[in-house]
Amino acid sequence: MEALDYHAEERRKAEFDVEEMKIVWAGSRQAYEISDRVARLVASDPVFRKDNRTMLSRKDLFKDTLRKAAHAWKRIIELRLSGLFFSCGMFIPAIKGQGNEEQQQKWLPMAYKMQIIGCYAQTELGHGSNVQGLETTATFDPETDEFVIHSPTLTSSKWWPGGLGKVSTHALVYARLITDGQDHGVHGFIVQLRSLDDHLPLPGITVGDIGMKFGSGAYNSMDNGVLRFDHVRIPRDQMLMGVSQVTREGKFMQSDVPRQLVYGTMVYVRQKIVADASCALSRAVCIATRYSVVRRQFGSHNGGPETQVIDYKTQQSRLFPLLASAYAFRFVGEWLKWLYTDVTQRLQANDFSTLPEVHACTAGLKSVTTSATADAIEECRKLCGGHGYLSSSGLPELFAVYVPACTYEGDNVVLLLQVARFLMKTVSQLGSGKKPVGTIAYMGRSEHLLQCRCEVERAEDWLKPKVILEAFEARAARMSVTCANNLNNFPNQEEGFAQLATDLAEAAVAHVQLIIVSKFIEKLQQDIPGKGVKRQLEILFNVYALSLLHKHLGDFVASGCITPKQGVLANEQLRLLYSQVRPNAIALVDAFNYTDHYLGSVLGRYDGNVYPKLYEEAWKDPLNETVVPDGYHEYIRPILKQHIRVARL
Amino acid sequence: MEALDYHAEERRKAEFDVEEMKIVWAGSRQAYEISDRVARLVASDPVFRKDNRTMLSRKDLFKDTLRKAAHAWKRIIELRLSGLFFSCGMFIPAIKGQGNEEQQQKWLPMAYKMQIIGCYAQTELGHGSNVQGLETTATFDPETDEFVIHSPTLTSSKWWPGGLGKVSTHALVYARLITDGQDHGVHGFIVQLRSLDDHLPLPGITVGDIGMKFGSGAYNSMDNGVLRFDHVRIPRDQMLMGVSQVTREGKFMQSDVPRQLVYGTMVYVRQKIVADASCALSRAVCIATRYSVVRRQFGSHNGGPETQVIDYKTQQSRLFPLLASAYAFRFVGEWLKWLYTDVTQRLQANDFSTLPEVHACTAGLKSVTTSATADAIEECRKLCGGHGYLSSSGLPELFAVYVPACTYEGDNVVLLLQVARFLMKTVSQLGSGKKPVGTIAYMGRSEHLLQCRCEVERAEDWLKPKVILEAFEARAARMSVTCANNLNNFPNQEEGFAQLATDLAEAAVAHVQLIIVSKFIEKLQQDIPGKGVKRQLEILFNVYALSLLHKHLGDFVASGCITPKQGVLANEQLRLLYSQVRPNAIALVDAFNYTDHYLGSVLGRYDGNVYPKLYEEAWKDPLNETVVPDGYHEYIRPILKQHIRVARL
Repeated sequence: MEALDYHAEERRKAEFDVEEMKIVWAGSRQAYEISDRVARLVASDPVFRKDNRTMLSRKDLFKDTLRKAAHAWKRIIELRLSGLFFSCGMFIPAIKGQGNEEQQQKWLPMAYKMQIIGCYAQTELGHGSNVQGLETTATFDPETDEFVIHSPTLTSSKWWPGGLGKVSTHALVYARLITDGQDHGVHGFIVQLRSLDDHLPLPGITVGDIGMKFGSGAYNSMDNGVLRFDHVRIPRDQMLMGVSQVTREGKFMQSDVPRQLVYGTMVYVRQKIVADASCALSRAVCIATRYSVVRRQFGSHNGGPETQVIDYKTQQSRLFPLLASAYAFRFVGEWLKWLYTDVTQRLQANDFSTLPEVHACTAGLKSVTTSATADAIEECRKLCGGHGYLSSSGLPELFAVYVPACTYEGDNVVLLLQVARFLMKTVSQLGSGKKPVGTIAYMGRSEHLLQCRCEVERAEDWLKPKVILEAFEARAARMSVTCANNLNNFPNQEEGFAQLATDLAEAAVAHVQLIIVSKFIEKLQQDIPGKGVKRQLEILFNVYALSLLHKHLGDFVASGCITPKQGVLANEQLRLLYSQVRPNAIALVDAFNYTDHYLGSVLGRYDGNVYPKLYEEAWKDPLNETVVPDGYHEYIRPILKQHIRVARL
Repeated sequence: MEALDYHAEERRKAEFDVEEMKIVWAGSRQAYEISDRVARLVASDPVFRKDNRTMLSRKDLFKDTLRKAAHAWKRIIELRLSGLFFSCGMFIPAIKGQGNEEQQQKWLPMAYKMQIIGCYAQTELGHGSNVQGLETTATFDPETDEFVIHSPTLTSSKWWPGGLGKVSTHALVYARLITDGQDHGVHGFIVQLRSLDDHLPLPGITVGDIGMKFGSGAYNSMDNGVLRFDHVRIPRDQMLMGVSQVTREGKFMQSDVPRQLVYGTMVYVRQKIVADASCALSRAVCIATRYSVVRRQFGSHNGGPETQVIDYKTQQSRLFPLLASAYAFRFVGEWLKWLYTDVTQRLQANDFSTLPEVHACTAGLKSVTTSATADAIEECRKLCGGHGYLSSSGLPELFAVYVPACTYEGDNVVLLLQVARFLMKTVSQLGSGKKPVGTIAYMGRSEHLLQCRCEVERAEDWLKPKVILEAFEARAARMSVTCANNLNNFPNQEEGFAQLATDLAEAAVAHVQLIIVSKFIEKLQQDIPGKGVKRQLEILFNVYALSLLHKHLGDFVASGCITPKQGVLANEQLRLLYSQVRPNAIALVDAFNYTDHYLGSVLGRYDGNVYPKLYEEAWKDPLNETVVPDGYHEYIRPILKQHIRVARL
């Protein structure tokens, strides 16, 4: 007997080879096979059950997470899957990047084997983005050859580090280094927090959890923590000395290792964040697409079934650009992986020439992809109607888990302004003969871009990648150049930068969207096997680019990159493209190859058997353990029976 | 000794009389005094404590809600505050609107006195917006003079009604009326669900809670329910017979009461939703504004304090338009209250002439204000940086509680399309001599609006309400007329409507934003006492209108309503306006007169004493009850001590 599959008919409609698309999505056949194997292992292991997460109390939720982590660790060792599930966050990368040889040899093996558990304690109660403003101090005491770690104020309490509150035995603490009364800025120190015997905090250390966070489940399964130091002493060799050193005499020395090396780690982390964005976005899109096919509303003719909501243009115009974005972010993430390798090789060869461009591009992509993904998850939730509000849809938790990405590793607005600074610098150097390279190379053609005219005459002209690319280049170049010109109206650059910050951030967005568009085009130029696969990607590319163009029409038209009429044609073409996506929508989300366990959504079930399962899930709620609710006798019955005692006033 | 107030200096900066502004915000001195008194009563009553909500398990949370409800009911009786806190949702209004005299006399007193608790059971597992698609049946049995209420399919299970799952004794059930084999469409029936003696479900009734929803706390304190009927019999007189009747013989009769009367209730409900939008939005804005003054980041000079984040233009350009929107929604909500009175009087006089316009305007305002508010709450959360993610910021729960407003009482996109239908009808009748009235009156001047030119030459020209109004009118008129013209390119109106749905929805938004802008202008034309109050409102009006113009620049420029240059001038003016809002920001949110209890936010505290309180709150988390977490011995220690047993593969 065939398994139930309400989506079977939709799957038959697909005009491309979905198995080949799975490989495109995964990046390679090997990557596909590994991720497929791991996903199935996790899905089939009852310990990893997660459907009850949102019903657990904070304490039970946390304990459940510890249980899963321990189990995952065991499985990792059994299956020799090193590091696939488990990560100590930034603790290990920071020791790798900032520790010297000796320190790496001492600490890394213990961390890898989990003989110690480390967290990354940077942010403080009063200090987030501005790392240089941290208040915690590490004062060198030459008499004992130790650093004294201290929290001089309440706002200097470490706040937010994941794993700090309850689990970590050690922390990488960022503190102001003070030797001989002089402040040498912020450096990293390895500090033991808890006894390895009984897990009790060591003397001078106050540590705890910072309390409930957004959502049920979500990050409440993690012990983001608070940490205060009361003159805690650590040996001198627990300052990370790869880049700077403090000698036995208390002399501070900068090493000759170029500081730019830390950028390598940053590119790595941000590339990971962009990859995560495409994962989170594609999960949400997969759920919303599958349920949009199941869900019917209005449009019944002669008592027949109602219309599938995915057939409404309003649904398509909200959903398909998100589907296209998931692919776009995937490909730009793939390219970032290459960029990381490239930049690492260059750094090793002492070639720092591409760093500013790479930094701007990764900062910008982190900002744009995470903001777009957070909004998109919530949009997908709304696209599921009322049922998207149920925890069993998986979308509320996905949203709550995802949104911090807009804030951590660089607040998204702060990052855009960093990109804008780079853009302004590039514009200012245009006359100097210094040729912009990489993602900013188009600025070298700004003379052309500032006066070119878009050649679209009919809607189908908007299908040409060349036409789209030039429109996006022209928009980005014109916005940057306009900002640069306006900056000149201010008495000084800093004042201008402060006043025009919003315009600058918008120019940065235009630049980053251009990067994503151009990397999608590069992907299309590759050899893509599989029946119809390339054609689908072309459609998705056009949907991505033209929906952005529609959303930012003001930018394009006001800067004269396109005419209002061309904007109308783009919109017409977009409508036609939606009709081409429609029959392939289910197969395009199937290509993500997500297990039902990973999706964690009744609405997004592979087999589309939504309503019976929603009904079944409901009865599992703790409130349904009894027919008459706890509290009936104390609170409901007295009201119904009018036995409420009214106090005299 | 003076009470601690970190915001005191900010408060001294205010250039207007905040006490007078409180009265403007409340609508009248009397409304201000009542709301102030109630808010203080609630805030000072320890039973209404809510800071622990997010830490409770589902069962404890629900029981806590019952406790509060019972207490509130008692206080209502004690203080003779009828109905201020407590509402049976739509159960009572529906009986009022659709029951006959006799039914109202029988059921309403019981409902008011809470001798019965009723819920409103309309939506089904498979049926939301499309009420006419409901599947539950009510079949008349002439032999017993009863209706047989039945759920013929799984998807016909009632799903979502608030209060249904655990509390309600009765439900107003919407079901297809069937007499003599004929389907007469959907009607309302009063059905008893639970015994008034022991609260057990009556025979044939399956009822329960539908499970966890978005967020912790939030709607999880409510028992949204599922309900199935297995041939449940009710007396004939429990069909609401105000509008239609079934006789003893089973004959179905429409009464001569005009069906349009139900629109009165709809206007009432939507007016309430718009008022709620301004409440939710202003709460979020109040929290974000107060914390933006406390929070400092970057920009320290010579070791001095860092810059308050509210001084950054990027923060202002995100926050101040939301502050302005809170006021804009407040005033349009006030006007809707008047509209409700007006339409009620007209209906009583059998004047149905304004109904289509009123319906379009209330549907549109519900859609636009709730969508904007949901987005704004999340934006305010992001504006608070990392700490906005903590439950103690109050913002996660505010968001989770608020977002269903985009879906209930009419999905926001479906509503926009209803507005668009009305707009298209209005355009098509323009030549017919039928003069558009009320909020659509501007269409009567469409000949002028389609060719007028905006007269802005300098940035300050954008301060004139007349200029702004015409730009918004021109935009709305042009978008509607363009849609109407494009509809003619399709073989039939319905096909065109389906294909152009997205454009039509955008035209509807333009129309609704015009309504909000024009009602703000009407408010400014009123006599507004109090030093500087009117001036502040003028600034907020300009911020609201010009930030909308910037956001929808593509609409304005592409339709030729304004030139790109005028768009740039609007942006310049906006920047100047932000500087004028800045010194008044704290006072403008103080004018909402929210107690700290109501705000429920450590970040939004009136006294600005944020960090010590955040620190204090953290320790209340259940995870901090023990220093060593539950689960340490089972899961953490074995890993640290390398005692994990690895299975042989």
